[in-house]
Amino acid sequence: MRIIMVGFGVVGQSFAKLILSRSADLYSQYGIKPRIVACVDNGGSAVAPAGLDLQKLLEAKKSKKTVGAYEKSASKFDPVQVIENVDAEVVLECSPTDLSTGEPGTSHIISAMRTGKHVISVNKGPLALAFPSLIELANYNGVMFRFSGTVGGGTPILEFAKRCLKGDRIISFQGILNGTTNYILTKMAEGLTYEKALDDAKAKGYAEANPSLDIDGFDAAAKLVIMANWVMGMKVTMKNVKRTGISGVRSVEVKKAVQKGNAIKLIASCDGKTLEVSPTEVARTDPICVNGTLNAVTFSSEHSGQQTIIGRGAGGMETASAVLRDLIEIRDTVFER
Amino acid sequence: MRIIMVGFGVVGQSFAKLILSRSADLYSQYGIKPRIVACVDNGGSAVAPAGLDLQKLLEAKKSKKTVGAYEKSASKFDPVQVIENVDAEVVLECSPTDLSTGEPGTSHIISAMRTGKHVISVNKGPLALAFPSLIELANYNGVMFRFSGTVGGGTPILEFAKRCLKGDRIISFQGILNGTTNYILTKMAEGLTYEKALDDAKAKGYAEANPSLDIDGFDAAAKLVIMANWVMGMKVTMKNVKRTGISGVRSVEVKKAVQKGNAIKLIASCDGKTLEVSPTEVARTDPICVNGTLNAVTFSSEHSGQQTIIGRGAGGMETASAVLRDLIEIRDTVFER
Repeated sequence: MRIIMVGFGVVGQSFAKLILSRSADLYSQYGIKPRIVACVDNGGSAVAPAGLDLQKLLEAKKSKKTVGAYEKSASKFDPVQVIENVDAEVVLECSPTDLSTGEPGTSHIISAMRTGKHVISVNKGPLALAFPSLIELANYNGVMFRFSGTVGGGTPILEFAKRCLKGDRIISFQGILNGTTNYILTKMAEGLTYEKALDDAKAKGYAEANPSLDIDGFDAAAKLVIMANWVMGMKVTMKNVKRTGISGVRSVEVKKAVQKGNAIKLIASCDGKTLEVSPTEVARTDPICVNGTLNAVTFSSEHSGQQTIIGRGAGGMETASAVLRDLIEIRDTVFER
Repeated sequence: MRIIMVGFGVVGQSFAKLILSRSADLYSQYGIKPRIVACVDNGGSAVAPAGLDLQKLLEAKKSKKTVGAYEKSASKFDPVQVIENVDAEVVLECSPTDLSTGEPGTSHIISAMRTGKHVISVNKGPLALAFPSLIELANYNGVMFRFSGTVGGGTPILEFAKRCLKGDRIISFQGILNGTTNYILTKMAEGLTYEKALDDAKAKGYAEANPSLDIDGFDAAAKLVIMANWVMGMKVTMKNVKRTGISGVRSVEVKKAVQKGNAIKLIASCDGKTLEVSPTEVARTDPICVNGTLNAVTFSSEHSGQQTIIGRGAGGMETASAVLRDLIEIRDTVFER
């Protein structure tokens, strides 16, 4: 399988390392021989129809900060040129998430689908802003579109809902979908003020210098939109989410909740009609009430009851393992074994 | 799809109700038209090649305590006669679990496989005592063997491990696999003595008059064996499990654990080499530390990290929903759509 990688950050590099370490095993167990035939980042591009040398690619990125340094003579193609002109079966979109414009990811995905390539995205932006139309475009072009890594990192939340509850109907779900805010709320429950907890999250590398994406609930809302579309068959985008962040949560409220045996968590919920992200008081004995940077989702089904799935919601190698799952699914569905 | 049901207790009756309520939907969504062509219980049998009237079957069971009352003229066949002589694609084995002999379930399953029928078992006995040889027999006869309802009730623990972590390797897992003992330990953590907690569990209908199956860890060990075989590819049976029950857990130990922010739980664990069921102290912040009758399992994988799945481990309708999942899987795998 020939793959074009767009973006070569933490997840992209982890995926390259994963392929390197697992190649023999992937072939014997799943019949997959992934070949990265092109890789593009901000600084340039590397193209090799027979497959890039991943060790060399990782070294170029490490030493020169761009895959453009892979070969001296390399021309500088932009991502869309590469997607449209290089032969491949799959495009892996892992450029940075932008939840206001969805770009440049959306353009990459559209180019890939239009030229008949399956798409795996770990970029939430395009999905949060245009999920229904991207799915239509994929169907129209007869290609597969997968995005396991956008929700839960390596924790297979989307797969669980889609594959493990066959024959049943999910009626609603709710979850903690953002690790950074969960870390801050956990620290506040331990006694820190909001400001101190945020500083601690920044110091640990959990929160960005501009933490609005997490703090104001945008990241959780984006994941909620992806789940609502994929799991519940809704046709919604970011603008359908009623969203409240955690910056208004006061220490005294957190303390009161703790005294009652509860905790305040940033809960994303979907009942099949409305989507909401907001700080909510939950019982500490509720399985969804996880601490630190953990994520958790509870699904309520018609016959099989409630199930909760818990795991880390981030991490380069974890998310790369989600990409690999998508790749295996595309392989199993599209190409006969 | 023609189905022979062996055993018509809580799960069997719930499955009949589920089929009744979902028939139109099952056909349109999954292309499945389940027909129960025979049903056998302790008191007799009912056979109808065109499909039993499930409403009438449920009424016969309710009023006369046996499906033998379905028709006045019915001859009394034993389960093996029915399995061997009635044409059907699937045998659903839901007779009572016996963890010392595995019977009569094992004989039913062997008869079904030998006559080329796929098997769905919710009976743990045969699997706990003879998993490796039953899988071999299924392969030899070219039939499918599924048992989602044996672990976790309606919670898709086996499916999660098998389907949601493709491309990754599960290194180990541990879990709370028995709701009754978890209820007792939860009550002890709240201050009850072991005896009081056991009485409470009996009063609530969670524990049998002879509660040894739960209390002494046999039920958890049986589920551990099933998971070790299916998830980890081990070839093990009950005798490979190092098993300690909860009757030796003292109130003072439970209290000490609570004071440290921990809890004593009956943990079943598998590291790919050894299998153990024993009371173990776990941190209350560990996602696996669930209360009441809940079950929980944490899987540790090579690349995607740790994931925990939590749900009720029992319930008639919940377990029936697991049987339906197995049926859909058999349909999808064996019969082209």
